[in-house]
Amino acid sequence: MILINGESRTSIEIADRGFQYGDGLFETIEVRNGQPVFFKRHLQRLSLGCQRLQIPVPDAQLLSIEALELCRQMQGTQAVLKIIVTRGSGGRGYRQPDTIQPTRVLSLHPYPDYPKNYTEHGIVARFCSSRLGLNPGLAGIKHLNRLEQVMARAEWDDTAIQEGLMLDINGHLIEGTMSNLFYAKNHRLYTAALTHSGVAGVMRGLVMQLAAEHDSPVIEHHFTPDELLLADEIFVCNSIIGIWPVKQIENTHFPVGAISQNMQSRLQQFNHDDE
Amino acid sequence: MILINGESRTSIEIADRGFQYGDGLFETIEVRNGQPVFFKRHLQRLSLGCQRLQIPVPDAQLLSIEALELCRQMQGTQAVLKIIVTRGSGGRGYRQPDTIQPTRVLSLHPYPDYPKNYTEHGIVARFCSSRLGLNPGLAGIKHLNRLEQVMARAEWDDTAIQEGLMLDINGHLIEGTMSNLFYAKNHRLYTAALTHSGVAGVMRGLVMQLAAEHDSPVIEHHFTPDELLLADEIFVCNSIIGIWPVKQIENTHFPVGAISQNMQSRLQQFNHDDE
Repeated sequence: MILINGESRTSIEIADRGFQYGDGLFETIEVRNGQPVFFKRHLQRLSLGCQRLQIPVPDAQLLSIEALELCRQMQGTQAVLKIIVTRGSGGRGYRQPDTIQPTRVLSLHPYPDYPKNYTEHGIVARFCSSRLGLNPGLAGIKHLNRLEQVMARAEWDDTAIQEGLMLDINGHLIEGTMSNLFYAKNHRLYTAALTHSGVAGVMRGLVMQLAAEHDSPVIEHHFTPDELLLADEIFVCNSIIGIWPVKQIENTHFPVGAISQNMQSRLQQFNHDDE
Repeated sequence: MILINGESRTSIEIADRGFQYGDGLFETIEVRNGQPVFFKRHLQRLSLGCQRLQIPVPDAQLLSIEALELCRQMQGTQAVLKIIVTRGSGGRGYRQPDTIQPTRVLSLHPYPDYPKNYTEHGIVARFCSSRLGLNPGLAGIKHLNRLEQVMARAEWDDTAIQEGLMLDINGHLIEGTMSNLFYAKNHRLYTAALTHSGVAGVMRGLVMQLAAEHDSPVIEHHFTPDELLLADEIFVCNSIIGIWPVKQIENTHFPVGAISQNMQSRLQQFNHDDE
């Protein structure tokens, strides 16, 4: 189930700049009961990303109509909606065409069969040896240049490990290969400052909002693996998994504690209509 | 004229990881008299890049047959052959499939109508404000994650400026948006060390080889715009343009001198059969 610029197709022109240069962005959205979850937030991030990359922002109403058309088919089933927006087709060469006609691709995917266990009892993570580069100009954007994540995810095959944590080249912890990373220490929540690398996840933004509303603002800073391993609790999050406590990183164990569990409850209670 | 895995097609599956993540590499090759120029060198770099990205290296003989099939049509005309190799199709998520079946795309493009003037009398360049990120793991590879170049090339529209020079986030000059950068000072040639960013161009490699064989080895190091502006001569190079002297960077003028001209002659004399 794929819609490309509104038409049911499964392939894209070779000349599309998404294929040629990774010249675009994407959103990965949970679909529940035929509805995309936190859709406004995803559209908002997509819009901000397009602005930063100087790609014309696709019409939000058009995207909504197309998304609902796809999601409607998933009534009663959980699924994943992926939206890709690229700078469209153009000639050879980095120079963008004089008139940009962005390509939008909406595709529906099965919801991954993660054990419920991960949410309740936590996951096992490892430190990746592949590092994230530093690039303030692209940091935070969920763009299509994702070789760093591909290389990091290729490091392990052990199904007992659910996520790999990535450091930047300066040795600061930034995020998981597919998630953002939070830790609690002395009743405060911390996450990586995404000034030089990383993806500013929609779920990361929501966790930060909920923390600020109910407790105290999350502290964004630069921290090392040594600091992380001294945490009271750790969790990772994204729009598909929600919040997964981390129970173990390599040989260090962590409790699934009240801060992670409270955040999970708040997320569940959070009124999507108010999103 | 496009061959995808040997078949004449113009579009690629949405699920191709080249489109989803920029998970692949490319080569841009001059075609002269129906023959790809420096083809062995391009295949060699492609192979090294695939190895670094852990993508199975496409069969060189197969690539040669397909390349010649396309190029044969361009007898008597200059053209550009682009080869893209991706990690092939896979499910959603960064994890690569258990069995990787790379996609290879060969496409033929018109040769750009650069005035001959550029080769003889030099070009005008500018400094880009978009910076190159630092990532030793991906530095040097001609991979498909090219948003940095896209953003830099979008900075200017003035047709009087032929190339933009890019600094990394530490303020070191690395390369042009589509070329590598060399300068001469006191009869020695210098170019950027590509330890943390940049593309190790085939033409860059050839220039370094010719310099070492005929004069003295090119010095690879980190240098700033201030150092560049004190150069005796400057040139940029790539496989399509060959060597273009730089006659002006913003308000500073440079001569088209003997070192650039000698290198151009050597390149012309270089026996492609011996490549």
